[in-house]
Amino acid sequence: MDNQDQKVERMTLLVFASDLDKVLGAFIIATGAAAMDIKVNMFFAFWGLNALRKEECKIPRKDILSKMFGWMMPKGANKLKLSQMNMMGMGTSMMKGVMKKKNVMSLPDLISTAQDLGVEFTACEMSMNVMGFKKEELLDGVKLAGVATALDSASESKTSLFIS
Amino acid sequence: MDNQDQKVERMTLLVFASDLDKVLGAFIIATGAAAMDIKVNMFFAFWGLNALRKEECKIPRKDILSKMFGWMMPKGANKLKLSQMNMMGMGTSMMKGVMKKKNVMSLPDLISTAQDLGVEFTACEMSMNVMGFKKEELLDGVKLAGVATALDSASESKTSLFIS
Amino acid sequence: MDNQDQKVERMTLLVFASDLDKVLGAFIIATGAAAMDIKVNMFFAFWGLNALRKEECKIPRKDILSKMFGWMMPKGANKLKLSQMNMMGMGTSMMKGVMKKKNVMSLPDLISTAQDLGVEFTACEMSMNVMGFKKEELLDGVKLAGVATALDSASESKTSLFIS
Repeated sequence: MDNQDQKVERMTLLVFASDLDKVLGAFIIATGAAAMDIKVNMFFAFWGLNALRKEECKIPRKDILSKMFGWMMPKGANKLKLSQMNMMGMGTSMMKGVMKKKNVMSLPDLISTAQDLGVEFTACEMSMNVMGFKKEELLDGVKLAGVATALDSASESKTSLFIS
Repeated sequence: MDNQDQKVERMTLLVFASDLDKVLGAFIIATGAAAMDIKVNMFFAFWGLNALRKEECKIPRKDILSKMFGWMMPKGANKLKLSQMNMMGMGTSMMKGVMKKKNVMSLPDLISTAQDLGVEFTACEMSMNVMGFKKEELLDGVKLAGVATALDSASESKTSLFIS
Repeated sequence: MDNQDQKVERMTLLVFASDLDKVLGAFIIATGAAAMDIKVNMFFAFWGLNALRKEECKIPRKDILSKMFGWMMPKGANKLKLSQMNMMGMGTSMMKGVMKKKNVMSLPDLISTAQDLGVEFTACEMSMNVMGFKKEELLDGVKLAGVATALDSASESKTSLFIS
């Protein structure tokens, strides 16, 4: 497909949030676009990295601050909370229940589907560095890159969205 | 105008938030663009649907969860709150007062103006389904469609913005 | 550069938020793009204006509401707080400390760098009016303009992002 590069429509999603609702929105757009043969690049920065964390992954950390960030932030797609009406987790559980009942894919399933459809995941190196995350803590297949890579992708994309 | 479709500039706004400030921002952009002869499509998903709800509309609901969503979320443009400095409603009232005093259109007026200027409103079907909203609960003239329609619109647009 | 206008790639950033993390994101994108010879226009509206306020600037204000907005909102880039994990300022201080330690530029430094790289800052006139801000309260070099100017810039840009 890449040797016909001029003809492939591209989309870049800059995922900055880790609220369940916003990350769901990002992945519904990503999988929808990929199903329409749009080549989607998702860049995860800052809080957005949390959506890519493996649930179980203990890494010997170098400093106390990295440990604190690691403890305090949601560990993976299953742990994200709604940006509103979380109500100490009740609203989030309710939303997940409704989604299941109405046959809407869960976030972890959407993430797998996106990967199966060839959506590329890139984690922002600077954010990884600031939050003290290691590559091994993120889902397999996630690349690391800097802001220039995200901007190149945006330059080649018909649509770029900042999801915060 | 649509038979000259190639020449019409298009804009797609994906409205995901229901905070008064952000929805105001979306409609100021939408009406401004429409006044400049840009064809604007607004897609409302998730919390964004609240801005389109009619203030008075009782629908016999099927399940308790849909009822709960209906009760707990703001019923229409008049009920939205600021994302910051709401201060139990005081900040929001203050903001509305200042806007009136300084002759800035209120959100309900901006919404009517957008409709008069031909801005199209589409509600995300999946979000409607999850939140248990019915078409009759939304402002007249709102269409329902899926994510593919939003993505098609974005593909044809010079500018697409995600407002969350 | 402007007489070759057709060849210059442009980017428009609509900065609506005043959370430290989001404004940092906006300026990392802006300076990154400017370093890649993209002409960047940043429009600051609503809360976003706070990032441009001078730290020390007393203006005789006309009305009590403008005074209140002035008091209650963060006075400049140094006073912005994280959108999450602020923890009464502790999380924000921690984040600033980590950034310094890991040699990531602070927000005030990123703002200066953006200005040095020719990034244009424009403040939304309507927001200035609603919040009762005066031009003198904002950083030197900030222009004032209405939504039409922001939309014109977006129309000419390869990439436009709404940062909320």
